[in-house]
Amino acid sequence: MSIRIGIYGYGNLGRGVENAIRQNPDMTLRAVFTRRDPSTLHIQTPTAEVLHVDRAPEMVNEIDVMILCGGSATDLPEQTPAMAKLFNVVDSFDTHAKIPTHFANVDAAAREGGRVAAISVGWDPGLFSIARMYSGAILPDGKDYTFWGRGVSQGHSDAIRRIEGVLDAKQYTVPVETALDAVRSGSNPDLTTREKHTRECYVVAKEGADLARIEQEIKTMPNYFADYDTTVHFITKEELDRDHAGIPHGGKVIRCGRTGAELQNSHIIEYSLKLDSNPEFTSSVLVAYARAVARLNQEGVTGCKTVLDIPPVYLSPKSAEELRKELL
Amino acid sequence: MSIRIGIYGYGNLGRGVENAIRQNPDMTLRAVFTRRDPSTLHIQTPTAEVLHVDRAPEMVNEIDVMILCGGSATDLPEQTPAMAKLFNVVDSFDTHAKIPTHFANVDAAAREGGRVAAISVGWDPGLFSIARMYSGAILPDGKDYTFWGRGVSQGHSDAIRRIEGVLDAKQYTVPVETALDAVRSGSNPDLTTREKHTRECYVVAKEGADLARIEQEIKTMPNYFADYDTTVHFITKEELDRDHAGIPHGGKVIRCGRTGAELQNSHIIEYSLKLDSNPEFTSSVLVAYARAVARLNQEGVTGCKTVLDIPPVYLSPKSAEELRKELL
Repeated sequence: MSIRIGIYGYGNLGRGVENAIRQNPDMTLRAVFTRRDPSTLHIQTPTAEVLHVDRAPEMVNEIDVMILCGGSATDLPEQTPAMAKLFNVVDSFDTHAKIPTHFANVDAAAREGGRVAAISVGWDPGLFSIARMYSGAILPDGKDYTFWGRGVSQGHSDAIRRIEGVLDAKQYTVPVETALDAVRSGSNPDLTTREKHTRECYVVAKEGADLARIEQEIKTMPNYFADYDTTVHFITKEELDRDHAGIPHGGKVIRCGRTGAELQNSHIIEYSLKLDSNPEFTSSVLVAYARAVARLNQEGVTGCKTVLDIPPVYLSPKSAEELRKELL
Repeated sequence: MSIRIGIYGYGNLGRGVENAIRQNPDMTLRAVFTRRDPSTLHIQTPTAEVLHVDRAPEMVNEIDVMILCGGSATDLPEQTPAMAKLFNVVDSFDTHAKIPTHFANVDAAAREGGRVAAISVGWDPGLFSIARMYSGAILPDGKDYTFWGRGVSQGHSDAIRRIEGVLDAKQYTVPVETALDAVRSGSNPDLTTREKHTRECYVVAKEGADLARIEQEIKTMPNYFADYDTTVHFITKEELDRDHAGIPHGGKVIRCGRTGAELQNSHIIEYSLKLDSNPEFTSSVLVAYARAVARLNQEGVTGCKTVLDIPPVYLSPKSAEELRKELL
């Protein structure tokens, strides 16, 4: 029996989910839900329907898992609880400080509907959370470090685009190599924000704009850039489109911990991602967890889960026997 | 309530477990079980008893989890099922081909006793299996690579020691840097055994032994060395004791996979361990899983589990709420 998937929202993430479903033979895309006029939206799966979001409730018996592909700022806080009353759901909610509230809302909705929801699925939060969880439990006397990049930060790119005189921009977050080396040496260094990451900005300015002022505004922007060593490169629109069209990202979670009678032995666990496409990789994680929530609900589980609650074996289409044989 | 631990077998692994328990405030070492005369065995925990293994059955109400610290060849196939009838247990059984049989035996015993058993816990099998599990489920179009080292292989060191004229020896398994680079480039290379690892041998020969013959016997030994580029260094006993006393190890699981409409985007997930002490790190993993089996059994679960079946959250002493707040 194929797992029937609905995609709710068809941006970068929704398109990534559509592609990922084709890589998983035990899954079928049943429908894409959009707030736009469905006739204007062209998807790549000829066997799937495009429906207005208002028609989602009609599809409760047609869809096993709804994957929510909206944004964390305004979409998911509304959509995930609403959909969790009707469907098993997966989302990639990533506003760290609001996760407890979101969890409570989604949990209540999913229990009411007798469904399973997995929230905050992706790589951070998500796979990086899992890495921190295992490493911390195994090496209690130790310290975690998370580095992001080299990769595109959408939030920082947007912040630059809001500056007067800027036509377009792309911002890369870059981990500092000497900081990485210090962490990997096992010395458990204390690192400031500035010591861990630098920020590289590629900016297309409007004709006649005051470049010195733009650069100054970027470098002194509180929260986004002021605490970092930031470099600004002015380039043409053509250069931006040619050299900076992708959305790569990645990062590392490193834990260094000690064991032994005198804590004399040092151990380093490093989990690292290098991603050509941030949204496509996140989509692939969402799809693997869609399989998990479908199975959990079949077993009678209800309520909200995170990646920390879900046994690894639920992510795979293979049986526990096969996995023990192949992976252990 | 502290989780009361028993250690069954007091070699490198058992001593590592004893140290790891002291790093986990929610655990107490209750007793060490030995096949030797208990009066001859001196442990580091004054509050714990040393008992002969025959007395284990008397301790069923005193111990929440028995951690089995014997070897996979002959100890664990007998000991784990026997103990799983009486206690929740954790072992590090690592004879790959025999895991299905061991699982079946331990599962039957644990169900009979109403206990939970976790087998094949450690880093490979163990954490590396988990890494392969997540990566493979997320990137189905891809390929796994496992590299071991730089680290001491006990089996290969023992094989050298059995050669006539050899007094002592230590063998390091070393991953080939160019192979690592090829894998990380995303090219999904096909690599032979010889291309992935080299073997470095440090050998102390008896006085007057024929060094050329020893070197030849090592390099041509089937299964152990014949398929590898092997280097042999003859050193003195003093040099061996001074420079090669530790038991470091480690390794990497790397998966490279592709996504996108044309599978045009490449992603690399790398999980890496660098360990000063192989047995102490393995012990730390065993202790974290001891916590998990104690909790699972409290919730009414019985039977045999592996690391693939156990949700990450069960490894931590913290509540699910705390973990969501701190790690997601």
